[in-house]
Amino acid sequence: MKTKILGAEDMAELLRVVGRDRLMDHMLDALRVRFREHDDETVEVRTRDGFRYDKPALGLVEWMPTHEAGGPVVVKMVGYHPTNPVQRSLPSVIATSSMWDTESGHLVAIADATLLTALRTGAASGIATDLLARRGPVTVGVVGLGAQAVTQVHAISRIRPIQRIIGIDTDPDVAATFADRTSFLGVRVDVVGPERTSTILGDVDVLCTCTSVDIAADPVVADVTTRPGLHVNAVGADFPGKLELPRTLAERAWVVPDILAQCIVEGECQQVPPDRIGPSLSELVQQPDIAEGRRDEITVFDSTGWAVEDDVALRLAVELAETHGVGTDIELEHLPSDPYDPYSTRTGH
Amino acid sequence: MKTKILGAEDMAELLRVVGRDRLMDHMLDALRVRFREHDDETVEVRTRDGFRYDKPALGLVEWMPTHEAGGPVVVKMVGYHPTNPVQRSLPSVIATSSMWDTESGHLVAIADATLLTALRTGAASGIATDLLARRGPVTVGVVGLGAQAVTQVHAISRIRPIQRIIGIDTDPDVAATFADRTSFLGVRVDVVGPERTSTILGDVDVLCTCTSVDIAADPVVADVTTRPGLHVNAVGADFPGKLELPRTLAERAWVVPDILAQCIVEGECQQVPPDRIGPSLSELVQQPDIAEGRRDEITVFDSTGWAVEDDVALRLAVELAETHGVGTDIELEHLPSDPYDPYSTRTGH
Repeated sequence: MKTKILGAEDMAELLRVVGRDRLMDHMLDALRVRFREHDDETVEVRTRDGFRYDKPALGLVEWMPTHEAGGPVVVKMVGYHPTNPVQRSLPSVIATSSMWDTESGHLVAIADATLLTALRTGAASGIATDLLARRGPVTVGVVGLGAQAVTQVHAISRIRPIQRIIGIDTDPDVAATFADRTSFLGVRVDVVGPERTSTILGDVDVLCTCTSVDIAADPVVADVTTRPGLHVNAVGADFPGKLELPRTLAERAWVVPDILAQCIVEGECQQVPPDRIGPSLSELVQQPDIAEGRRDEITVFDSTGWAVEDDVALRLAVELAETHGVGTDIELEHLPSDPYDPYSTRTGH
Repeated sequence: MKTKILGAEDMAELLRVVGRDRLMDHMLDALRVRFREHDDETVEVRTRDGFRYDKPALGLVEWMPTHEAGGPVVVKMVGYHPTNPVQRSLPSVIATSSMWDTESGHLVAIADATLLTALRTGAASGIATDLLARRGPVTVGVVGLGAQAVTQVHAISRIRPIQRIIGIDTDPDVAATFADRTSFLGVRVDVVGPERTSTILGDVDVLCTCTSVDIAADPVVADVTTRPGLHVNAVGADFPGKLELPRTLAERAWVVPDILAQCIVEGECQQVPPDRIGPSLSELVQQPDIAEGRRDEITVFDSTGWAVEDDVALRLAVELAETHGVGTDIELEHLPSDPYDPYSTRTGH
């Protein structure tokens, strides 16, 4: 039985033949559909778990399993090693996703999920921004200009005209290339110095925070008087004690978690009063009227990463790969010619 | 960065070039070494978890993660679908194992673990039998003659002369082929009818139970007067409520779990009084004198499957693959040429 492999070249090929705009549009559409149909009764999501360590490098490897009743099991495996970009010229997040058939336990597909994670994280913020930011063109602030920043602004550009992007990063080398990395958007990009974290909250309609802030560090922006209806996509908090936003902002905002149980442990919801936490993003997609009434308030999308998004992303990649004839099929599992004889082989040896 | 793939043909090739006897010997040696060196302080084993369902087929997909401090993370993913052999001509257990580098989070290797699981499960029983069965040639009984049965008797044959094998299975089709599947051992194999489950316990020196017994079903053998020093490898119980041995036997035996925390939930230890449970198999390997004093008692190895064994099995397979030039290296992860630009590629597109 064949296992479909979608590797590095396949992802590059999908980017090329589908195009990044259409790829992001597909991701936005696929997530919206799945959020609209999501039912906690028929989808099991296991709490993200993993091994965290500080040797040989600070990092973690974790797994995000999900299962839709009657459908496949999908598990994303994620490595997060914040020193990767500087020390190894690798992204801090490296991930793969796999899909199992629940009739036989056969591994149907393994795909790179490094690109898919960036896409789905951007798309989730795009959907939240679409529902919660004021209508019309927006000025977007971005704090933390690494890989996730690119897909954040890309996704937002697909749902709303962007007038201007203001970017900030504490690392001047990262800051220096952000305008180039987002030049494909055709939007004015101003990268400003870290001192502007003290005022940026007042200068934008949409803010994306996607930093690798340390645990218990100061917030990545200062709280100031904001424009009416500011919407924040808080993407970086993903660990107990790790927070990006000022507590005073979190307390007066209306906060939409991607998955509440995870957000109250490792997201901004750690510091949000329970009465300021709204429905999840998928519930909001199901009841957009609720979001409509909040457009003039300060809103926060607390994005910790939901396994269902990874399920959607993998299924989309497999579907696009089949449409475009991308990927390689291999015989990964040793399935003996006699199921009762582990030493029998199908390959003639 | 390359990910090594060890697929179906690679496993067949390893079987061919290494030979199944030497492969089993390698597995026995590698497990013994690891058991001897095992330290709970430096090895994290996450409790086996997974999704269980009864549609589209009764089955489960589960994950077994482990991490040795400073070393790689290894996760085995296991599908267990008991209707596979009859309905799909597939083994009931289909598994893959993967290994991550903890410096970068890079996926180093993915391998079939269907064969490796059968090998390591056999080898663990072989080690337990070596430590706990009476010295000298043995008569081995096997109840449940599927894939695991083959590697059980194979492993035992590598550590002790086998005089005779007596096999029982409730499925006559499975029973009919067992002698052929184990003919490579050069040992007399008598397959007897299911009625002999009522007496087999008295006819053997070593018993292996590797059935797919139902939850809360009757024991797979009847309790009778046994030979002195009977040793049992109980391999089939792997689910809460699932038990293979008669309670009266479990109560008077001295029971060695592979991993206690798992055995008291889903192994024979569910029905063993705490004062009859001894050290784990790895502790016993570290202190063989303790085992020595138990050779004349009835002993049970409660084998539920330990993630550390899968770690050992994967590392052995990768090592042998490198020695013999087996396997394929692929670029699985999309690692952008600029770690801060998820859309950049290394492949020239």
